[in-house]
Amino acid sequence: MAEPFFKVTHTDPSGARCGVITTSHGQVETPIFMPVGTQASVKFVSPDELYEMHAGIILANTYHLWIRPGAELIGQAGGVHKFMNYKRPMLTDSGGFQVFSLADARKITEEGVSFRSHLDGAKLFLSPEESIRVQNLLGADIIMSLDECPPYPSTYQYMKDSVERTLRWAKRGLAVHNNPDQFLFGIVQGGEFEDLRHHSANELAAMDFPGYSIGGTSVGETKATMWKMIDYSVAKLPLHKPRYLMGVGSTDAILQGVLRGVDMFDCVLPTRIARHGTLMTSVGRINILNKQYEEDFTPVDPHCDCYTCQNFSRAYLRHLFKAKEGLGMRLASIHNLRYLIALMEEIRLAIREDRFLEFKDDFFMKYNLDAPDARGF
Amino acid sequence: MAEPFFKVTHTDPSGARCGVITTSHGQVETPIFMPVGTQASVKFVSPDELYEMHAGIILANTYHLWIRPGAELIGQAGGVHKFMNYKRPMLTDSGGFQVFSLADARKITEEGVSFRSHLDGAKLFLSPEESIRVQNLLGADIIMSLDECPPYPSTYQYMKDSVERTLRWAKRGLAVHNNPDQFLFGIVQGGEFEDLRHHSANELAAMDFPGYSIGGTSVGETKATMWKMIDYSVAKLPLHKPRYLMGVGSTDAILQGVLRGVDMFDCVLPTRIARHGTLMTSVGRINILNKQYEEDFTPVDPHCDCYTCQNFSRAYLRHLFKAKEGLGMRLASIHNLRYLIALMEEIRLAIREDRFLEFKDDFFMKYNLDAPDARGF
Repeated sequence: MAEPFFKVTHTDPSGARCGVITTSHGQVETPIFMPVGTQASVKFVSPDELYEMHAGIILANTYHLWIRPGAELIGQAGGVHKFMNYKRPMLTDSGGFQVFSLADARKITEEGVSFRSHLDGAKLFLSPEESIRVQNLLGADIIMSLDECPPYPSTYQYMKDSVERTLRWAKRGLAVHNNPDQFLFGIVQGGEFEDLRHHSANELAAMDFPGYSIGGTSVGETKATMWKMIDYSVAKLPLHKPRYLMGVGSTDAILQGVLRGVDMFDCVLPTRIARHGTLMTSVGRINILNKQYEEDFTPVDPHCDCYTCQNFSRAYLRHLFKAKEGLGMRLASIHNLRYLIALMEEIRLAIREDRFLEFKDDFFMKYNLDAPDARGF
Repeated sequence: MAEPFFKVTHTDPSGARCGVITTSHGQVETPIFMPVGTQASVKFVSPDELYEMHAGIILANTYHLWIRPGAELIGQAGGVHKFMNYKRPMLTDSGGFQVFSLADARKITEEGVSFRSHLDGAKLFLSPEESIRVQNLLGADIIMSLDECPPYPSTYQYMKDSVERTLRWAKRGLAVHNNPDQFLFGIVQGGEFEDLRHHSANELAAMDFPGYSIGGTSVGETKATMWKMIDYSVAKLPLHKPRYLMGVGSTDAILQGVLRGVDMFDCVLPTRIARHGTLMTSVGRINILNKQYEEDFTPVDPHCDCYTCQNFSRAYLRHLFKAKEGLGMRLASIHNLRYLIALMEEIRLAIREDRFLEFKDDFFMKYNLDAPDARGF
């Protein structure tokens, strides 16, 4: 019998769990952090470097690829894997998040969203069916239903109507999707409202998606609100399906998510801050541009096994950033991605050894992540 | 007995020659093209990628490193090799060329050149002794005497005085240099004046440098002038010492140089044009941004063995440039450098097989390089 798409391999007493995702591009272990390759490129980083840092699933963004170079072109190339030459599993989002955050002149109707491209102002229309059609052309292993990402705060009534529409959109997407190699996820919304999150999760569970995403959590006012949103969403999701917390990748959110049974995370944060010289290390975040690193010939993080730390010093990295050399952004991106991927390896080990809660508490204490101003590093 | 610094291993009937340079960072074969790492980084390219493309010697620029991060800092790091983690041979220039082309408020005296840093306007002074002191701190295997790079055209009298001063500067540099692991080259100047080039080369030869550079050739009005400048310089240089044509790396100039017995070349051209999407291929230069490559899923050059050509299509590279992704500049730089390094491998083979003139003539005919507007692609 073929491997199932997802299998929980171990659940720790805290509720955190390890699992395996199987796709036609190979298997990955969960909980997993997924690097973001917005425009079919993890900025400055090559596929070989992603393999070397033990990256598994990476993301590409449907909205960006749809408007440039176009889904048909990528379809002609044989899909986004072949286009960018990434041989491991990939995930695309629905395009909805970027329509709601980047595009202009949005208008939401029952049918879908009309908007103007942020590149050239072209009038475009994204429906649940179009999102699936585009994602079928891109050919990622895991794809997303179109959802509305409502602004925060929204009124209860607005959120209720939005959740209902998103549920109807999920059903429409499911109806037109017919590639068994691409696993379509439904997306739980409902803002900070417990009953709406429950309702959203219950209805999606009834549609029997291969996996579920938790959306709209990163817009909350406080971290405590975010943890609640995750709790409310996970409560009604089936145990044997993967859960993906969308767009969240700070270390505190990853650990809080894993504690609540989340399996997948993605975020542009590690690569974005890397390009500005901020590095995630075993002593917390450091900004390599600081004068204190000028004559520091030690690696960025002596405990890190990445290409950057194995080959270059803080002083050299600082010089590259000062001199605005692209190699600096590249080496910093490699380091931060490896930092998070290695953290997930430690998390999986802690779960398998039934000590995840201890691991999480130690981590929070070490980096003072319960402080009100903690940046979650 | 230890290997000599330079050994001519074969001379072809045309006068083109193969040789071997031996340094404490290993051996390289000549004729060689040397990638430029201005600020201790070949832009966007890692040391491992340089090894993979069979790069040998790379350059770093003394002027740039002197003003940022500073020669003392690099000395503390253990030299430029350790600072940037490049394990093969390296070469630094004297700093003179950048003082004459980048810096402000230059004033030349017998003692040296005073000028202002192009970064912060700081008043600095470069003498022949200071250039050697800085290059000793940087620790490259091959280093250069400070020379004046006179503007083109200069009067005969100006050029004559300049050549004499550069000869006195060469003597002063030689007098203070005392690291036997660093091979100091004298630089032939003299513009387009045959007698001045002869005089410059004769005097430098008498000082018995381990190698000789040919400077000031890329400022000429016509290619024919450049070939003459090379002829005049090489004519009086000892046969058993390496000759380095500074700052020249177009394919026609490389082939004309090799024909005249030149052993070493460097140029920022291949990486600079790469960053603008211009690629050197077996069908000549192509600009990857052209519409015709939009749906072209073939490699940049089907005859190329570089990482870029082995893994990515023209359509993907075009997309990366359109989307302003740094990976595009990186992949294009890797390709162009490998193109020139592979060309040198072909040149060395042709020399060893006594058919260099034929090789050169075929190349010129294929790419029409004798045309008055030939860019030497």
